[in-house]
Amino acid sequence: MTEKVRLAPIGLGRWSRVLARGALRGDVIELASCFSRSQEKRTAFQEEFGVPKSAATLDELLADDDVEGVLITTPNDTHRDLIVASLESGKAVYTDKPITHTLEQAIDVRAAVERTDGVLAVGHSARRLSGCRTMKRWIDDGLLGDVSLVEANFSNERGLELTPETWRWYADKSPGGTFIQLGVHHADNLQYLLGPVRQVSAHARRLYTKSEVPDAVMAVLEFESGALGYIGCGWASPGIYQIRVQGTTANLMYDLDFTHWDESHEADRWSTLVSQGYGDMTRKPVELAPTDMFREQLEEFALAIRGEAHIEVGIDEAIHALAIVRAALESSARNGQAVAVAPLLEGVWPTR
Amino acid sequence: MTEKVRLAPIGLGRWSRVLARGALRGDVIELASCFSRSQEKRTAFQEEFGVPKSAATLDELLADDDVEGVLITTPNDTHRDLIVASLESGKAVYTDKPITHTLEQAIDVRAAVERTDGVLAVGHSARRLSGCRTMKRWIDDGLLGDVSLVEANFSNERGLELTPETWRWYADKSPGGTFIQLGVHHADNLQYLLGPVRQVSAHARRLYTKSEVPDAVMAVLEFESGALGYIGCGWASPGIYQIRVQGTTANLMYDLDFTHWDESHEADRWSTLVSQGYGDMTRKPVELAPTDMFREQLEEFALAIRGEAHIEVGIDEAIHALAIVRAALESSARNGQAVAVAPLLEGVWPTR
Repeated sequence: MTEKVRLAPIGLGRWSRVLARGALRGDVIELASCFSRSQEKRTAFQEEFGVPKSAATLDELLADDDVEGVLITTPNDTHRDLIVASLESGKAVYTDKPITHTLEQAIDVRAAVERTDGVLAVGHSARRLSGCRTMKRWIDDGLLGDVSLVEANFSNERGLELTPETWRWYADKSPGGTFIQLGVHHADNLQYLLGPVRQVSAHARRLYTKSEVPDAVMAVLEFESGALGYIGCGWASPGIYQIRVQGTTANLMYDLDFTHWDESHEADRWSTLVSQGYGDMTRKPVELAPTDMFREQLEEFALAIRGEAHIEVGIDEAIHALAIVRAALESSARNGQAVAVAPLLEGVWPTR
Repeated sequence: MTEKVRLAPIGLGRWSRVLARGALRGDVIELASCFSRSQEKRTAFQEEFGVPKSAATLDELLADDDVEGVLITTPNDTHRDLIVASLESGKAVYTDKPITHTLEQAIDVRAAVERTDGVLAVGHSARRLSGCRTMKRWIDDGLLGDVSLVEANFSNERGLELTPETWRWYADKSPGGTFIQLGVHHADNLQYLLGPVRQVSAHARRLYTKSEVPDAVMAVLEFESGALGYIGCGWASPGIYQIRVQGTTANLMYDLDFTHWDESHEADRWSTLVSQGYGDMTRKPVELAPTDMFREQLEEFALAIRGEAHIEVGIDEAIHALAIVRAALESSARNGQAVAVAPLLEGVWPTR
């Protein structure tokens, strides 16, 4: 590639800086501009990352021919309008997960992708962690035999720290709380590992957060394969990030110390993957090759703009992940009765 | 105590020998007799454990004044009749878990306990493991803050090894499969840790076992405290035994290598308990004092016969544990809709 791909962040909060550091660890991407409504944030971001210019309005950014693609890290309830406007301006779009805060809006985005034939990548980066990639390879190679159960947990203390000043506090901006913020990662991971989910049964509770959203969610998934899956998400305890897969010939146990999540080129160093085979009285550590989930995902996005890569997690995968969240919340409202996923993917909502 | 307590096993299979070894590690108990319908098993058991006599019929055993209490390890669907007959003969009864194979029969047992005012202990020994005792102490001392989520898994490969010659193969003898055999342990553990459960939502599946019973079960519990709990049970994978508790100020993660379960005086050596506090970027191992769950439980039973100990797990605790199994199976039949536990405790069954 002769020339770096020119990207521009939209939204210049904490997460935009995590992604910028990931993008700039390689030599595929340059940050050509950036946009936030705050002049102060624009200046600080330009200085921190050596970005040559910034845009004072969204229109200005989207009209800038130097910008090939945008990186959206704004609040979830602003995603749809930003994605659609960007695609319609001919920009490629990378957006943080979840694709949008509601499934209705995600379906609007799907229509925009189809209408514009644009490039859209969604930041379900966790499946790129070495532990998840290795589990996928073991499953596909048949080393676990037939998989019957998979369990995952993603929790942290965020729900205890929320204030009314943050959008995550509000049920209309972040329905599902810990489950749309953290659980949606495992909704993608588990479908990546075991294929599509047929139905979801869940209970969501607001226990110790002062915010409007759930801080304790447990969801049971039934995969189309017949396997059962579980996702547990807390927002009122120290961090946990774990996946365990049980097969007829072996189990795999993956554990990542969440406190080291943000610096993705280091995350594998804080991970362990352990196997235990049928009849084995000992467990064996599995070596994890180093990965860099944020850098890899952004470089894939950048190269896809030039037609040199395929987007792994696009609109379809993102809608499948978000549909698990929606199904879980619907099920919780019915006191656990399972909700089918397929109709949700087509925008057909169950009646209460 | 001047004289050992004289107990007699009823049923002389593998588990009776695990319990006999536990009982004879101390000097509180002697095995005065034993009963099985098989002459061969009686002779072998007497020789292995130096038991002075055996009974050829149940009536003979129950008429023997040398026997103060019986240890029942026969198939679950025989428990009720054996327990009731033993109590009515004035014998104290220790029975393996689950108390009975159906909640209806457990309620019959409760009536017999009340009628005879007899001593009944039920083998929910797992709560006596050092890891579980330590978790309970931490929770009661407030070291975890407010608990929102607890997750547990108990799995092993048994479902893959069942044959039609074993009672566990059959749905009418062991309804719930892995959940009544393994899950009932965690049903007791979690209520021991966090108090009574209000309702249960579950999915039970028969995936890879050739038997009639489920080998994959996932249940979500709501405790009366408001906390959510999860129990996962497989019967088609290598063994797992794990409990994790998430609180506002710390998490505790307990793990026992199941392959070392039977020799209970060694089990703690194959266990780890780890804490992670709020804001901590490292995890800390928690020291586990050695325990011997089978010996402790049997000695408590023996001393209770003499009025020198209190039975920790009696009919009420056993019914609470079995009610979780029953509620889970009822919920699974309703595709996950939660089933309330309180009516089940009183023998009021939900209509389908």
